[in-house]
Amino acid sequence: MAERYEIRFSGAGGQGLITAGIILAEAAAIIEGKHALQSQSYGPEARGGASKSEVIISDGPIDYPKATIVDACLAMTQEAADKYAVGIKKGGLLLIDADFVKTAPEGDFTVYRLPIMRMAKEDIGREIVANVIALSAVIGMTGVVSREAGEEAVVRRVPPAFKDLNKKAYSLGYEKGKELVN
Amino acid sequence: MAERYEIRFSGAGGQGLITAGIILAEAAAIIEGKHALQSQSYGPEARGGASKSEVIISDGPIDYPKATIVDACLAMTQEAADKYAVGIKKGGLLLIDADFVKTAPEGDFTVYRLPIMRMAKEDIGREIVANVIALSAVIGMTGVVSREAGEEAVVRRVPPAFKDLNKKAYSLGYEKGKELVN
Repeated sequence: MAERYEIRFSGAGGQGLITAGIILAEAAAIIEGKHALQSQSYGPEARGGASKSEVIISDGPIDYPKATIVDACLAMTQEAADKYAVGIKKGGLLLIDADFVKTAPEGDFTVYRLPIMRMAKEDIGREIVANVIALSAVIGMTGVVSREAGEEAVVRRVPPAFKDLNKKAYSLGYEKGKELVN
Repeated sequence: MAERYEIRFSGAGGQGLITAGIILAEAAAIIEGKHALQSQSYGPEARGGASKSEVIISDGPIDYPKATIVDACLAMTQEAADKYAVGIKKGGLLLIDADFVKTAPEGDFTVYRLPIMRMAKEDIGREIVANVIALSAVIGMTGVVSREAGEEAVVRRVPPAFKDLNKKAYSLGYEKGKELVN
């Protein structure tokens, strides 16, 4: 049976989490040659401020049954954590923004904290790269794609003038993510 | 049973068709209050130049079985038409770029032609809005969301300086799409 890994990014609309999902799927499929499915589903809750984006990565073709198990989940805001940090598998991981999620959901998974928005603003100087920091932190924590594949997928998606900024953000998130789980 | 409508956008990577799918899903869900699912799946073929993006819109919660039937399909390039203009339902529609798809796939569906890239370049002056023209043409042809919901979803996603350009592109695509099916 093919190995399958599912990641959910959640946060506020406009934080670039759909883009983070697309980049991860492209890293896995276009660069590493795996199968990937990236999706957003919108129900009646979509009118609120929280949004989510999901990626399934597999060595083989992906069936997409409705019930899925999340290996790793990101929540950038309290509302996102409350709505979307569910269905995480036993032994899975939840990464939350340390400043914006005050009350972490409880379950048979490990909760990790990084001040992602603050890192984007203070360490990189641009809040807009918070999604890249979040993405690379998750890659550093899980190894679901290689460091290089993730970085290449990020760089492909940004205009030339923003490549260095995004590479810097990517490195920061990756290193901090890796430290968390070591 | 809930009414369900499935749309597939296909073309070359970089043509903004994932964004077109996300905009359509947001128009349906966030603006019109329906359920929507937007996805990209990447298999081994993802290393080629063609890409696809799919949207399911429904009055009720969406199950996502692997086998789906496409009501409306867009193909912006010959490669996309060859790879992805499949599974279109009997009586469905296929919209192709009149200049870039020379050989239309055959089936129990109706093929429509618009010179989408050329309209973007010559009528609007910017190739980058081709995805908005394609999106609004499909909305004009199908009525899957209202003209206003689609336009609002487009405008929400673009920086202020590009709103007028995108509104102009949206109107052009919508009118031409509507003419095709009348």
